[in-house]
Amino acid sequence: MNDIISHPKVKHAQELLRADHDRMVEEIVTLTEIPAPPFMEEEKAKAYAEMLREAGLEDVQIDGIGNAHGIYRGSGNGAMVAVAAHLDTVFPEGTDVTVRREGTKLFAPGVGDDTRALAVNLSIIRAMKAAGITPQNDILFVGNVGEEGVGDLRGIRYLFNENPLGPQIGSFFTVDGLETPELVDRGVGSYRYRVTFEGPGGHSFGDFGIVNPANALAEFAAGFARIEVPEEPKTTLNLSILGGGTSINAIPEKVYVDIDMRSVDPQALDALDAQMRALVEGALALENGRNDTSKGEITARFDVLGNRPAGRTAPEEAIHRASAEAVRAFGFEPAFRVSSTDANIPMSLGVPAICIGSGGTGGRAHTLDEWIDTEPELSLRGIYAVMAAILAMAGLQD
Amino acid sequence: MNDIISHPKVKHAQELLRADHDRMVEEIVTLTEIPAPPFMEEEKAKAYAEMLREAGLEDVQIDGIGNAHGIYRGSGNGAMVAVAAHLDTVFPEGTDVTVRREGTKLFAPGVGDDTRALAVNLSIIRAMKAAGITPQNDILFVGNVGEEGVGDLRGIRYLFNENPLGPQIGSFFTVDGLETPELVDRGVGSYRYRVTFEGPGGHSFGDFGIVNPANALAEFAAGFARIEVPEEPKTTLNLSILGGGTSINAIPEKVYVDIDMRSVDPQALDALDAQMRALVEGALALENGRNDTSKGEITARFDVLGNRPAGRTAPEEAIHRASAEAVRAFGFEPAFRVSSTDANIPMSLGVPAICIGSGGTGGRAHTLDEWIDTEPELSLRGIYAVMAAILAMAGLQD
Repeated sequence: MNDIISHPKVKHAQELLRADHDRMVEEIVTLTEIPAPPFMEEEKAKAYAEMLREAGLEDVQIDGIGNAHGIYRGSGNGAMVAVAAHLDTVFPEGTDVTVRREGTKLFAPGVGDDTRALAVNLSIIRAMKAAGITPQNDILFVGNVGEEGVGDLRGIRYLFNENPLGPQIGSFFTVDGLETPELVDRGVGSYRYRVTFEGPGGHSFGDFGIVNPANALAEFAAGFARIEVPEEPKTTLNLSILGGGTSINAIPEKVYVDIDMRSVDPQALDALDAQMRALVEGALALENGRNDTSKGEITARFDVLGNRPAGRTAPEEAIHRASAEAVRAFGFEPAFRVSSTDANIPMSLGVPAICIGSGGTGGRAHTLDEWIDTEPELSLRGIYAVMAAILAMAGLQD
Repeated sequence: MNDIISHPKVKHAQELLRADHDRMVEEIVTLTEIPAPPFMEEEKAKAYAEMLREAGLEDVQIDGIGNAHGIYRGSGNGAMVAVAAHLDTVFPEGTDVTVRREGTKLFAPGVGDDTRALAVNLSIIRAMKAAGITPQNDILFVGNVGEEGVGDLRGIRYLFNENPLGPQIGSFFTVDGLETPELVDRGVGSYRYRVTFEGPGGHSFGDFGIVNPANALAEFAAGFARIEVPEEPKTTLNLSILGGGTSINAIPEKVYVDIDMRSVDPQALDALDAQMRALVEGALALENGRNDTSKGEITARFDVLGNRPAGRTAPEEAIHRASAEAVRAFGFEPAFRVSSTDANIPMSLGVPAICIGSGGTGGRAHTLDEWIDTEPELSLRGIYAVMAAILAMAGLQD
């Protein structure tokens, strides 16, 4: 790491980042004010592709799922280093995304999650170009779709599984979150389903005795809530949204419950999933066995609402060490966290990956009161750390 | 019964009913075309009060809850005989209630349930008046509110519990349904609740381990579905509408289930209610015991959606025998049924009560395709039976 941060070209790039900071802030504003609700990232992707091109990347494209990306060409043939930030926000269409400023603070939905990172990456590209830095490996910068909620990591899933560049990627950063010391090296996997129970339905008094899908749902859900999950590896389950039924004097035809299961361990998550499916089968067998099925049986179906693989990047991996050292080099004490980010996808595929903050500070992410502080000193130390981590992985040509 | 139906004045009243039949049909149309959704019976009540006055009743009023009623004065001081039909329909505001005719058939929402009975009672009043019939006991004719669904029998509940005439009523007919042979002598009681479970809520992963109201709901509902109820007296229970929860990655703050419990036996219904409440307590204790309550406990509350008392009229009661004989006298074989009608209220208070059909035939009640056939021969035999049953209870002055 010392070789990297003491290199004259890197020092020069840091000066250029400082000189570019005001522009970087303006680009945060510009990009924040382009709405990008889940599945509606197209306009922001087009704008970002244009900015990647202006910053000097080659082969800038928008791929088949809507990710904007371009290549910072290196000199060698090593594996590509991917550096992503996500375009989408959690906010629905019609949300007012106008940025309000108070001193160095910016207020707007999406301003920190993850728009600052998009602008930080642009600034790093410009600084590296202007400082004449040529890395050994190609660096792929990506503004990707589909990180939040229902987006279900589809942008990075596509990048690795369908984009022709996917197989060339040997390490992966997603620049997400703000606080520089907080690095994510474990990806929480999650399986999310709407479990719908259906049956013939009828009148609550006249048809009493026939099977009731709400009985099966209750039996399943009570069993699900009784499951004991390990504390380590952290594994969780949740019953959330309930729905269905039309009238209090009707045996419902359809009821459902939304469930969420998560674990940092893929095996634990799969075991939980199997246990959940067995409970559904048991609940169906119980209800179809104890009540009258002459008008029809109770059935269940699963609609997948989310499927995020679990994964981890071992502390021995180069990207793990490089990230910790880069953060430490600029005065932060690294703390490795567990979370669900775009890094889940490469981690689950065995590609070493880290989620690193874009620097500065802020709060209230996922609310209309979201804000960041772009006060330059803290902001720049974070940006320097990101650049140093990238260059540590990409390698420096003398 | 032979004394009644062979009495010259009753014979004359039957001839007058026949002569009045066309007018009676016109009044079905007039009344059907005045909308009367639950809690919006006011206009129909006013119109019906005017028609009761025109038909010759005394002391016509609209009482404190909205029932229209008037007295057919008798000669003696015996207990009052009440004869009710309900004004309200199941159909919401805005439903097209225009009557369509095909021969003797009338099609419209509410035409049979219970508008025909309102018109039949008017025709009986006119015929008895014109035939010079003076009963021994006063007869109270009522067009009442609140029979259907959420109305929760509030019209007849008020009549017995708050209307000053209530304590004078010694027997009660509700003219409801069409088919003359079908008499209701057992009132199904029902308790209906929305059971809402509430807790602190939180993030499905970050706050995992805290209490979840959906867990408590599931435990309760699974236990409820496992309750074994007696076949005799018929007792039923039902889980119907489920709701609550805001997001799949949130531990919900609030979830609910709507439940319906019914029995023809008040003790069985109360026992079931107690069992249900114990299950809720048990589910709360389980969830608050096994999970973290540091952010708050799970609580439950009951919103009453319906409370209809159970009751029955014993076969030895005069009204039971009179109704059966009246029906039989006009060529029908009486069949006593179990149902939930306005007669539940007097039955539960120990006032002998019967629900009797208004005559004729029809179908598709509670749907937009509701229809009745007013073909005069069957229609009149039914009306004669209703009048005979009333007069058997009110007594005839010579």
